[in-house]
Amino acid sequence: MKFNLDCHLFCFGTFSERYVPTGYFDKVDVIKAFETIASTSVRGFMNTWKPGILPEDPEKNKRFLLEYGLVPSLVLIDNFGDRKYKHGAFSTSQKSMQKENMKLCKEGIDFAKALGVHSVLLWPAHDGMDYPFSVDYNASWKRMVENFIEIAEYAGDMKLAIEPKPQDPRQKMLVNSTGKAMMLINDIGRGNVGLALDVGHSFAAAENPAESCVVVDRHKKLFQVHLNDNYKNADPDMIFGTVNFWENLEFMYYLIQTDFDGWCSVDIIANRENREDSFRTCVRLIEKYYEMASKLVEKKDILQSNMEDYRFSKNVDLISNIIFR
Amino acid sequence: MKFNLDCHLFCFGTFSERYVPTGYFDKVDVIKAFETIASTSVRGFMNTWKPGILPEDPEKNKRFLLEYGLVPSLVLIDNFGDRKYKHGAFSTSQKSMQKENMKLCKEGIDFAKALGVHSVLLWPAHDGMDYPFSVDYNASWKRMVENFIEIAEYAGDMKLAIEPKPQDPRQKMLVNSTGKAMMLINDIGRGNVGLALDVGHSFAAAENPAESCVVVDRHKKLFQVHLNDNYKNADPDMIFGTVNFWENLEFMYYLIQTDFDGWCSVDIIANRENREDSFRTCVRLIEKYYEMASKLVEKKDILQSNMEDYRFSKNVDLISNIIFR
Amino acid sequence: MKFNLDCHLFCFGTFSERYVPTGYFDKVDVIKAFETIASTSVRGFMNTWKPGILPEDPEKNKRFLLEYGLVPSLVLIDNFGDRKYKHGAFSTSQKSMQKENMKLCKEGIDFAKALGVHSVLLWPAHDGMDYPFSVDYNASWKRMVENFIEIAEYAGDMKLAIEPKPQDPRQKMLVNSTGKAMMLINDIGRGNVGLALDVGHSFAAAENPAESCVVVDRHKKLFQVHLNDNYKNADPDMIFGTVNFWENLEFMYYLIQTDFDGWCSVDIIANRENREDSFRTCVRLIEKYYEMASKLVEKKDILQSNMEDYRFSKNVDLISNIIFR
Amino acid sequence: MKFNLDCHLFCFGTFSERYVPTGYFDKVDVIKAFETIASTSVRGFMNTWKPGILPEDPEKNKRFLLEYGLVPSLVLIDNFGDRKYKHGAFSTSQKSMQKENMKLCKEGIDFAKALGVHSVLLWPAHDGMDYPFSVDYNASWKRMVENFIEIAEYAGDMKLAIEPKPQDPRQKMLVNSTGKAMMLINDIGRGNVGLALDVGHSFAAAENPAESCVVVDRHKKLFQVHLNDNYKNADPDMIFGTVNFWENLEFMYYLIQTDFDGWCSVDIIANRENREDSFRTCVRLIEKYYEMASKLVEKKDILQSNMEDYRFSKNVDLISNIIFR
Repeated sequence: MKFNLDCHLFCFGTFSERYVPTGYFDKVDVIKAFETIASTSVRGFMNTWKPGILPEDPEKNKRFLLEYGLVPSLVLIDNFGDRKYKHGAFSTSQKSMQKENMKLCKEGIDFAKALGVHSVLLWPAHDGMDYPFSVDYNASWKRMVENFIEIAEYAGDMKLAIEPKPQDPRQKMLVNSTGKAMMLINDIGRGNVGLALDVGHSFAAAENPAESCVVVDRHKKLFQVHLNDNYKNADPDMIFGTVNFWENLEFMYYLIQTDFDGWCSVDIIANRENREDSFRTCVRLIEKYYEMASKLVEKKDILQSNMEDYRFSKNVDLISNIIFR
Repeated sequence: MKFNLDCHLFCFGTFSERYVPTGYFDKVDVIKAFETIASTSVRGFMNTWKPGILPEDPEKNKRFLLEYGLVPSLVLIDNFGDRKYKHGAFSTSQKSMQKENMKLCKEGIDFAKALGVHSVLLWPAHDGMDYPFSVDYNASWKRMVENFIEIAEYAGDMKLAIEPKPQDPRQKMLVNSTGKAMMLINDIGRGNVGLALDVGHSFAAAENPAESCVVVDRHKKLFQVHLNDNYKNADPDMIFGTVNFWENLEFMYYLIQTDFDGWCSVDIIANRENREDSFRTCVRLIEKYYEMASKLVEKKDILQSNMEDYRFSKNVDLISNIIFR
Repeated sequence: MKFNLDCHLFCFGTFSERYVPTGYFDKVDVIKAFETIASTSVRGFMNTWKPGILPEDPEKNKRFLLEYGLVPSLVLIDNFGDRKYKHGAFSTSQKSMQKENMKLCKEGIDFAKALGVHSVLLWPAHDGMDYPFSVDYNASWKRMVENFIEIAEYAGDMKLAIEPKPQDPRQKMLVNSTGKAMMLINDIGRGNVGLALDVGHSFAAAENPAESCVVVDRHKKLFQVHLNDNYKNADPDMIFGTVNFWENLEFMYYLIQTDFDGWCSVDIIANRENREDSFRTCVRLIEKYYEMASKLVEKKDILQSNMEDYRFSKNVDLISNIIFR
Repeated sequence: MKFNLDCHLFCFGTFSERYVPTGYFDKVDVIKAFETIASTSVRGFMNTWKPGILPEDPEKNKRFLLEYGLVPSLVLIDNFGDRKYKHGAFSTSQKSMQKENMKLCKEGIDFAKALGVHSVLLWPAHDGMDYPFSVDYNASWKRMVENFIEIAEYAGDMKLAIEPKPQDPRQKMLVNSTGKAMMLINDIGRGNVGLALDVGHSFAAAENPAESCVVVDRHKKLFQVHLNDNYKNADPDMIFGTVNFWENLEFMYYLIQTDFDGWCSVDIIANRENREDSFRTCVRLIEKYYEMASKLVEKKDILQSNMEDYRFSKNVDLISNIIFR
């Protein structure tokens, strides 16, 4: 892989949530946020469509980013942050919302092409169900697949990355796991449609992110990687590497060995400490895991051989000696 | 028990959350909300302190409620809805916040006494941890216990109900389960301190709410009951009885048999359908479960006898015949 | 669908487990077990390969079953019940075990053809991982897919049903969800390979079984259905319908509307009450759910229309009136 | 604390389980097992009552252990490994089983006294419920508390450690969490009754073991510590430290700072690699975590101060520099 880090401005959000609707912080000083980003090894920026704070004009957008040593890396279509999407941007039965979403996605793809980003991120956030007997699954899947096909064909050469998540904001989301996303991608059947592997979503879906990475890469569908952490029972977007050490290390070990040429996105929320320190700590931890995993990759022949011989103990000893003081 | 239903205005909130910070609804028309409440069998209202929308003056508050056939039932101290509480209202190391919280709690208790409510609700929402090595557990517990003791002594005859919850808004909350709350209540050691059993929190903590109800009632500490539902992996405050049928039925069956003389609170969020319909549907379902459980209570001698003989099959057959068409 | 119930002899096992290795029961009296089965509406029997207790000779096997009014319905390949399969029957790196498993699977398929059953069940039970850095995911997936292809081609017209499960006996299983199984089935790419939807596994994977049923059926891959229940955090194979009422009802509602022409398997373990009563109670509950779901299917135009209009409350009221006394 | 490691022979079991009832291994060569134990820093041995393989005569038992440099550390009452305990050794309604269990517990306590061990382990394994409407919670709790009181009074000076666990072998166990155990211990109200903190059970109960350790120690009730690991959704007794790095490190950091003078028990099952290697790897990992945590304890003033100032980022940087190469 090429190890490219990018991020988005949600890392510097107000972090409003259900219990603290006015957020844990005031609106960020955008200049301060970009200076913080620029002080790290992050070199890419994930725009949203519509961009909100940054310029909508692609050239101005690029120039703005360039001042901070950044390039546009990805574009996220924001078809989830408003109540109007509550029945699902991709699967809704509401004709007008289907149209509105289609228009937004196509505009976002145009924007992405103009920026020259690696890929566009699509997250079916509200496409799911809360209650038994509340959603027509068959009709919903049909519409979702058809909409994705239309978007994929419009995108042409631009890659589209679909991001699975088990729950939140819906109690059960239609694209709830790496496996389900791979099924969907197959149903869509277009070469430019792949998967965004969010490590935290993968943990929340009781997956092993390393295994998910390998399986998706086997199918050449690893388009994006999002980095954060959690306790496996929710997706709070915690600082990467602060909870699941071994699994994140293993994930990085396999990721390094892929041909992935996209971006690893810093994708965290830090609501109880200042956002700048949290961001920098997260980048440092990602670098540390990358560095430790790289040392393990140097020993990959031994490691993989112990695996194929089912000698886990030997790997624990080997890794401990390499990693710990 | 006496079957008294109350509710709070959060059932008619905008339901802003992390992904939809501006909420799923506009601010409710308060009159419409109270008319909806008045159209059901709900007869109590849980004020917050500070009350926000309703009058702070106790007499005016009561008069307002009386117009809708309601009495003030409970008071919830809102020491969690603002970012300033982010390190925990009860356990924070910040001296000024300790003072501010203590003042708020005492004012709320005064308000509760003036209203003549059954009990005051205290929810240690931000008292917990997110990251390993981020919180001093010993100092936090010490402060939390001491603060609760001071509040309990101030409250005198007014009952205080502490509400446990496993997570959200913290990743791990200090008072995370019925058992932990019972330990805390014992540490506080004041007769007027008991427990608020939120059925959804109990499910999210992998408890059986019926068993929690029985155990807390054995200790005469069942002060409040909150009704909602979920898939056991989060606390979305769904309409009571729409997910966990058998366990909610069993909960109601045991609750009816206690001497509980407080309020059962309708405690739901309904972000994808109109709030009024959801509220009414929830009240109807609660009534239905109460009615079905009451029929089972009539057969309690047989049911309990089958339990003590470990003949579950007989109970399934008996209950199915009573409940289902 | 055609509503055909079958079962296997595991329902009458000794239920040995980790903490009670000698089991909760003595070995069953086979005659008594079959008399119990015959006393219910179960009409099919899932043989294992090798059959163990029943005759290996297909004609004798069929004659034995006929005495109890049963036909051979399915064949389960038992490539998980012995320690030798501990590194995975389908994905192991051990050449000799690959061969042994291949031979067993082919023999089982021959047996299935001779019996004339609907389909063969394949469960990759030990194909997974316990520890990070213990299994080579890429090599494992490659071998698993290749082995399934060879088995599928050997099977010819005989249907093969692959059964996903999130964990147990492995901490993480490779085929851990409906989605992952669908990806695997697509990778195998043979028309006779489909999915066994075990409702309990689906719950344990945090799925909504109704949605899984619809999605798999959309792909014409619903080959088997296994019925049991659990608390969503493990797979104890409890009596169907005793925990998740609404979701099981919704599952049955959608299942009835498919063209499924296979078998619904009673798949329970009842270790603390006598096996015969538990079995009969389970069959009665399945029939009850089928009956209730059938009543709902009669109203499917209204139900689906309320779903497409996102009017959940109306469905709750409608269903409650139909179902509850 | 004094850092004393002990273990039991279950680490060298056959590991029979539900799917592999004949186990993953043949019966261990006892001499080989004890030689393995003796080759590590383990210095204590947890006998079971009845001891099974080791001598029942206390002096012979001690002499046997002495040959391997071991002392008797703890006694575990085995009132769960036989089907007869299926309705709960402590809470059952069956009079004869109540008597039988009481006799076993008292004999075990006599044995423990004769051996001079630190404490006796009591695990209410089958005391719980599987199905709603299957167990009388009130009667069960009453009997359990009364039985524990009788046992505690008989034990006199001998310490009793009650071990909570959320589930398995029951779907829901009565003593399901650290908090519930503390409530029970308070109900029992005898000074010699405390808690066995099994790190894996604590994870499975969604607790933070470090916080549980601190809270129990605050009450002077930390009597035993069991070391293993898991993915938080089950209790497979994996090698300590192979999954939850940060939380286990934090746990060790706090444990070291207590006055705990009991034993830390190696409590693992290793069914897919040879038992001897797994055991030695586990001991080495425990030592490594102890060593790393000890380095952190040297910096405890800074660490705790950062916690009280809510400066998590500083702790991450500090700890990373101390721990990682």
